[in-house]
Amino acid sequence: MTSRKEDYSKWYNEIVVKADLAENSSVRGCMVIKPYGYAIWEKMQAELDRMFKSTGHQNAYFPLFVPKSLFEAEEKNAEGFAKECAIVTHYRLKNDKANKGKLIVDPEAKLEEELIVRPTSEAIIWNTFKNWIQSYRDLPILINQWANVVRWEMRTRLFLRTSEFLWQEGHTAHSTEKEAIFEAKQMNDIYAEFSEKYMAMPVIKGNKSESERFAGALDTYCIEALMQDGKALQAGTSHYLGQNFAKAFNVKYANKEGKLDYVWATSWGVSTRLIGALIMTHSDDKGLILPPKLAPIQVVIIPVYKGEEEFKSVSEVAVKIKNEIESKGLSVKFDDSDNFKPGFKFNEYELKGVPIRIVVGSRDLKNNIVELSRRDTLVKSSIKLQEVSKVVDETLLDIQKCLYDKALVFRNKNITKVDSFSEFQDILDNKGGFISAHWDGTAQTEETIKMKTKASIRCIPHNNIKENGVCVYSGKPSFQRVLFAKAY
Amino acid sequence: MTSRKEDYSKWYNEIVVKADLAENSSVRGCMVIKPYGYAIWEKMQAELDRMFKSTGHQNAYFPLFVPKSLFEAEEKNAEGFAKECAIVTHYRLKNDKANKGKLIVDPEAKLEEELIVRPTSEAIIWNTFKNWIQSYRDLPILINQWANVVRWEMRTRLFLRTSEFLWQEGHTAHSTEKEAIFEAKQMNDIYAEFSEKYMAMPVIKGNKSESERFAGALDTYCIEALMQDGKALQAGTSHYLGQNFAKAFNVKYANKEGKLDYVWATSWGVSTRLIGALIMTHSDDKGLILPPKLAPIQVVIIPVYKGEEEFKSVSEVAVKIKNEIESKGLSVKFDDSDNFKPGFKFNEYELKGVPIRIVVGSRDLKNNIVELSRRDTLVKSSIKLQEVSKVVDETLLDIQKCLYDKALVFRNKNITKVDSFSEFQDILDNKGGFISAHWDGTAQTEETIKMKTKASIRCIPHNNIKENGVCVYSGKPSFQRVLFAKAY
Repeated sequence: MTSRKEDYSKWYNEIVVKADLAENSSVRGCMVIKPYGYAIWEKMQAELDRMFKSTGHQNAYFPLFVPKSLFEAEEKNAEGFAKECAIVTHYRLKNDKANKGKLIVDPEAKLEEELIVRPTSEAIIWNTFKNWIQSYRDLPILINQWANVVRWEMRTRLFLRTSEFLWQEGHTAHSTEKEAIFEAKQMNDIYAEFSEKYMAMPVIKGNKSESERFAGALDTYCIEALMQDGKALQAGTSHYLGQNFAKAFNVKYANKEGKLDYVWATSWGVSTRLIGALIMTHSDDKGLILPPKLAPIQVVIIPVYKGEEEFKSVSEVAVKIKNEIESKGLSVKFDDSDNFKPGFKFNEYELKGVPIRIVVGSRDLKNNIVELSRRDTLVKSSIKLQEVSKVVDETLLDIQKCLYDKALVFRNKNITKVDSFSEFQDILDNKGGFISAHWDGTAQTEETIKMKTKASIRCIPHNNIKENGVCVYSGKPSFQRVLFAKAY
Repeated sequence: MTSRKEDYSKWYNEIVVKADLAENSSVRGCMVIKPYGYAIWEKMQAELDRMFKSTGHQNAYFPLFVPKSLFEAEEKNAEGFAKECAIVTHYRLKNDKANKGKLIVDPEAKLEEELIVRPTSEAIIWNTFKNWIQSYRDLPILINQWANVVRWEMRTRLFLRTSEFLWQEGHTAHSTEKEAIFEAKQMNDIYAEFSEKYMAMPVIKGNKSESERFAGALDTYCIEALMQDGKALQAGTSHYLGQNFAKAFNVKYANKEGKLDYVWATSWGVSTRLIGALIMTHSDDKGLILPPKLAPIQVVIIPVYKGEEEFKSVSEVAVKIKNEIESKGLSVKFDDSDNFKPGFKFNEYELKGVPIRIVVGSRDLKNNIVELSRRDTLVKSSIKLQEVSKVVDETLLDIQKCLYDKALVFRNKNITKVDSFSEFQDILDNKGGFISAHWDGTAQTEETIKMKTKASIRCIPHNNIKENGVCVYSGKPSFQRVLFAKAY
């Protein structure tokens, strides 16, 4: 495998393919998510879904297609997505008379109105909410949808940027501005909690600058993570939409006094992009490293033996260990296939990032021990048979914690305060990471910096200290630092 | 509500909308699945997914789009779906200069090759399997996908036939014909088990006639259910695809001797249509009736009281009951909202098909009893407080069983053996249900009967008795009866 130092981008692509997570398909920019990659997504979904439901949200499903007239109703949103839409124009194929066995689009089956394949569902959902909302008693509406969306990206990368991706999109409707803002913040907090607790990936919570906001939002909250190569990755966003969509779709409610007002909205989403973030936060030159809480296989048991007799006694112990660990709700694989040598299997499960490997060998068994290896540190230790289950529990907890701590140390080391533009460029070129710098608050300066350095404002952190300073580029006054970085 | 006798079709539509399951969207033929309907789908998904995984299948995800050249590769499959495809032809919108704020399709963003929105995924998946399969060691591949698909239907009905629907589609690859046939049958058996155990819906397992097979299949297994109006409903299908797709996509494997052969295939699916089947199997003129195993809310507790004081004591008991029942893993709702009177709530939860209602009333509490009502029989009984949890368990089991038994009696009563075509037409017009009749085995007779009566061959049952007879229409010899019916 290519090392990270050699070529980070190549290393990433190799991990995705070699660890059997995903591959490019024959459809431009669309990926095939393979079973092992999809199993990680299922683990992510399960936790997120639980978190959404425990905060009162319900799942529903809205159409894949958005009629053009609805799509264009909220102008800013439409403008933001118009340039990357897949558009359905026909509903039938017919035989190609000139080419036997081939099909052509039937020109007689042209749609009266084109359908946009949803790049996001605000339009179709708010057009539906209109019929669900009459009075304050119908509010709040707290909906989530697990779905596929399509954005016609020109440059794609597996998980990070694909023309079709899987995600969840929350869409909520509220009777007050305050409640909507609370909701948008709450969901961003949930994303942060999920990232840190389950993905073991530290994130910075903040607001997007106006230029980086979601098209149609009044405010966008986000979580930003730092990858090992010093580039930032936006891992989740939550939008306060104000009354924009309510106005575009004429969604009003009667308050307790019977007065009509437009409804307040939020939307929020995370996607299969998180799998890319997970890979780039923890993995090493030997392959994937997965945090135990999201690993499809948490423990793999590999037998080492010679001959049928030894295989029997080794297997017996292995199965016993498997059953004991599984009974605690962990997912364990006993790989007793005889197609491959143990050494090959070791590499395979290292590549796939299985957190713990237990080797049950006939020699060790004479001393009533097995060998336990941690994927994160690659440290091996001998464990007494009767202590295996306990040690596995402790080790999984420790791996989860160590991965987070390590990523946090790295992230914190890579937030650099700079006070001049030359320093800004120097850090960006030679160190990377987040740059904490004063900014004059104008879109123009933001744009110029981006043009000159490729670094964008990742966020204005929520826990920002107000301090007077001057903009790193324009020299104009500023009252807080913001975080810049090159980003995925 | 319209009664079933009055207008079954109208009754169905009203239940779907009034029980808050789904509604039509502004996209032709596409539905919005509302939270209560989606919660039923989630329950179905959870059980099916468990059954698929316990038989060795893994989930994965393949692209939404199929390039036209792949779509047309398996000719029969292409022919079967060509007339109902949504086709993406462009990838960008641009501002309409003639209409400020409006968008038009950018003619410069025409795709070189059109993309078909998947009506089913054999083509895209077999084009992918090609790269996954070299030798017998790579087989079997046992994949399932939860996805949305689009078939441009001209006449749509909520859940039963929609242009977009949600489903799962299994796609497997095998090294032998025998194994592929075993797989196709196994999955049809799993569908039958799911229908009967969870949906409490009896089904007949059988083979489709050649004309009714899936486009591109060598054999289609199916489960057929009978709705209350005497019409049949195909609830699931499992296809033995032979080597058709392997040949179309040139997928060969080397066997143990190193000889190359085409791979054998199956595919199988059930969809949100099952929700329609569930509704029409059990529900009555008061609304939905849900089997306990798929009910999003299994028990609803409603307080009856006067004044604050009574509310307190009633609530205390209700919460106690709720906690006790929930601790057994059941889903319970305590509806203590004061917006609506108890009578209104009774109707509401009857409409929504909640299997058990418990009324905690202050008068009853003096005698240490509560009132328990079954949704299926509408029978009420007084239960001692200390026995509530036990009785709830028993009642849920009994409701599940009774629903199945009732549907089975109805189904069996509505399989009629006929031996003449006049009888065939008479039964169809005046009784409905399945007609068990001899058929000469030709597609021509099948087609003629369908034209004359609108009844199609639903299946050739697996448990068929071979008996000599003559075709009910042509008088030609026949060795078995098949099941005809009008169908959804």
